[in-house]
Amino acid sequence: MPQNSDFSIYNLPFGIFSAGRKKARVGVAIGNQILDLYAVAELGHFDEIGVKKEVFDNEYLNDFIALGKPITNAVRLKVQQLLSDQNSPIKGNDGLFEKQADANMHLPVFVRDYTDFYSSIEHATNVGKMFRDPDNALLPNWKHIPVGYHGRASSIVVSGTDIHRPKGQVVPKDAKSPVCKASGRLDFELEMAFIVGKETELGESITTANAEDHIFGFVIFNDWSARDIQKWEYVPLGPFLGKSFASSISPWVVTLEALEPFKVEGYEQDPSVLPYLEYNGKKNIDINLQVGIQPDGGGETIVTNSNYKYMYWNMVQQLTHHTVNGCNVNVGDMMASGTISGKDETGFGSMLELAWAGTKPVKLNDGTSRVFINDNDTVVMRGHAEKDGIRVGFGEVKGKVLPSF
Amino acid sequence: MPQNSDFSIYNLPFGIFSAGRKKARVGVAIGNQILDLYAVAELGHFDEIGVKKEVFDNEYLNDFIALGKPITNAVRLKVQQLLSDQNSPIKGNDGLFEKQADANMHLPVFVRDYTDFYSSIEHATNVGKMFRDPDNALLPNWKHIPVGYHGRASSIVVSGTDIHRPKGQVVPKDAKSPVCKASGRLDFELEMAFIVGKETELGESITTANAEDHIFGFVIFNDWSARDIQKWEYVPLGPFLGKSFASSISPWVVTLEALEPFKVEGYEQDPSVLPYLEYNGKKNIDINLQVGIQPDGGGETIVTNSNYKYMYWNMVQQLTHHTVNGCNVNVGDMMASGTISGKDETGFGSMLELAWAGTKPVKLNDGTSRVFINDNDTVVMRGHAEKDGIRVGFGEVKGKVLPSF
Repeated sequence: MPQNSDFSIYNLPFGIFSAGRKKARVGVAIGNQILDLYAVAELGHFDEIGVKKEVFDNEYLNDFIALGKPITNAVRLKVQQLLSDQNSPIKGNDGLFEKQADANMHLPVFVRDYTDFYSSIEHATNVGKMFRDPDNALLPNWKHIPVGYHGRASSIVVSGTDIHRPKGQVVPKDAKSPVCKASGRLDFELEMAFIVGKETELGESITTANAEDHIFGFVIFNDWSARDIQKWEYVPLGPFLGKSFASSISPWVVTLEALEPFKVEGYEQDPSVLPYLEYNGKKNIDINLQVGIQPDGGGETIVTNSNYKYMYWNMVQQLTHHTVNGCNVNVGDMMASGTISGKDETGFGSMLELAWAGTKPVKLNDGTSRVFINDNDTVVMRGHAEKDGIRVGFGEVKGKVLPSF
Repeated sequence: MPQNSDFSIYNLPFGIFSAGRKKARVGVAIGNQILDLYAVAELGHFDEIGVKKEVFDNEYLNDFIALGKPITNAVRLKVQQLLSDQNSPIKGNDGLFEKQADANMHLPVFVRDYTDFYSSIEHATNVGKMFRDPDNALLPNWKHIPVGYHGRASSIVVSGTDIHRPKGQVVPKDAKSPVCKASGRLDFELEMAFIVGKETELGESITTANAEDHIFGFVIFNDWSARDIQKWEYVPLGPFLGKSFASSISPWVVTLEALEPFKVEGYEQDPSVLPYLEYNGKKNIDINLQVGIQPDGGGETIVTNSNYKYMYWNMVQQLTHHTVNGCNVNVGDMMASGTISGKDETGFGSMLELAWAGTKPVKLNDGTSRVFINDNDTVVMRGHAEKDGIRVGFGEVKGKVLPSF
């Protein structure tokens, strides 16, 4: 096991991989290896849990996740035992493992519906200062509602997928009418997303007390954004083509259970929230997040260090609010946090904020600077939690920006 | 064949039905009957087209639609021939037919992603007059962009499904803070939706010239809306819980080919649109639309008569715009028109407009009046095209509003 691996024995995230002649199937990351769960199941190690091997012979995790937490947690604990036991029956069985370096990772879930929230108070405040009133940066509803909107599920892609700079309608400076051209203000947004693990029926509402039963796990989420397209289109119905050209996610789904030790208190919410949004216990999670930019052929510059704990609205409030109207959720729904910005410019979660709408260029190690993302730049996001010598991480989500078609 | 049937020999829409011991499968509506396509396929009538019977043994139309227009059109023409031919081999074979009255209709497609446009100029103008500036009702982008937004796919239900009045955050009159309660301003929105029949890859853009290749057919769409929830939540990211509690669609998917004879010229677009949105030929469709309200146990009152031809932005412009940024589309994507309002109050497509934000109650035949929809009201929408004695219709989409949970 490499030191400081994101994929320690305490993590054991699930993903979909293919390697050599093995077609897409379910695996668990451990160190720099992947444990092939289909092969483990074939040996009968999950028989006592009652899980059939076919669920692991799958292009997506949805069928596995739909078995429910009692089953999926039992599988994860069984894997932990098999990997830890000195006399493990899988010890030395190299056929059960693949090197991560030799495997292709696939989109881990079929994303049924995708929702994006807007739950970082620093991000919402920064955007409000730039585009609205610096003295009243937050809109009146922001501290009452975990504001969110529906996103495009079809264009969510896995880490490593190249992105083409989108074209669209933008209004040039000092012009009154739009033109159709490649976006000149392509940005990333540093987000986390949780994946729904338990469905509800139409008309049913989740509560803050049972919301975690419906959350399977997490990925890092890059909500690519074309600021110039978004600016022209978003009134009155919200972001559309400025976002829907692509969103990138990390391939390994880290379970809520693996993140349990890293929970922390959230923000004090003032004014107090409505009763249906009140909650007990720690619902924020301390996950260090960073973003790097790699120019074509050059080295990487870390441009921000943020943390998932900087969420004014937490995951259980988001999911409870989402279903207060009876909206049904499904296994594989993806709910992103919104851009996660820290308290100052060392932790802002987008180029829009880091370069303050183009006014403060961000210097890279190669001597160039950026106000937005250039063609052939690669954006890399990483995340990990660490406490008492235990590390649970996400690996990375990476995407290269190719020129527009 | 009943006179004036929506389901004439010129229509032949596809749907998913179950009846008696027959589980969900593909059928075609003809008069007041359903032709069981699985049973027809079992007799070998589609062998020459190369369609296997299994595609009709299906809970959704997606697999059938994905065969592509050359195949699906050939199936429709074969059905037309089988139903028309005096010496038809299916004549008198009652086992191939079910009475519509005896069948259950199901959601016809698995809706992959759902988009709602805002393409009726009368509707956008009415909303702008009520909530913004009567003298500048349209926002600056409206005549340049077919404005749209992502909606919630999971809560789209088939006609006949009861809807519960949603709860959510609303701000009472003269209050400054929200409360969580059942919506007091529940509305319908009269829309049409088209269903995507041919996928694209991420990075690919559809053009106005080839957009119709990607459109399989149409349904009537009731975009239920909770105006008070929507009003409080929608800035700055658009409608969310004010819409996502339910949308209702008609069960029979009428093909673009069946609607071909009813195409008409669209609006003159001034200012002229950007080149990628220019189009040739007739792309609007003359489909009469009506909405009725049935109070519990009472008779129906028709409250509006509108038409799908009242679209400033047509279907090919919508789909072209949606993909100009490279956003990929999939079979089963549903793209709704936005509320379709005629030029005056006899044709407005929502209670918001008909009762002008609560100021002009709409009288029903039973002597009661409505400014929005009451509990236990049923809303019925119907649509049909008619020309030269030929009628092609949609049947209806109906939904009853039950009290809030």
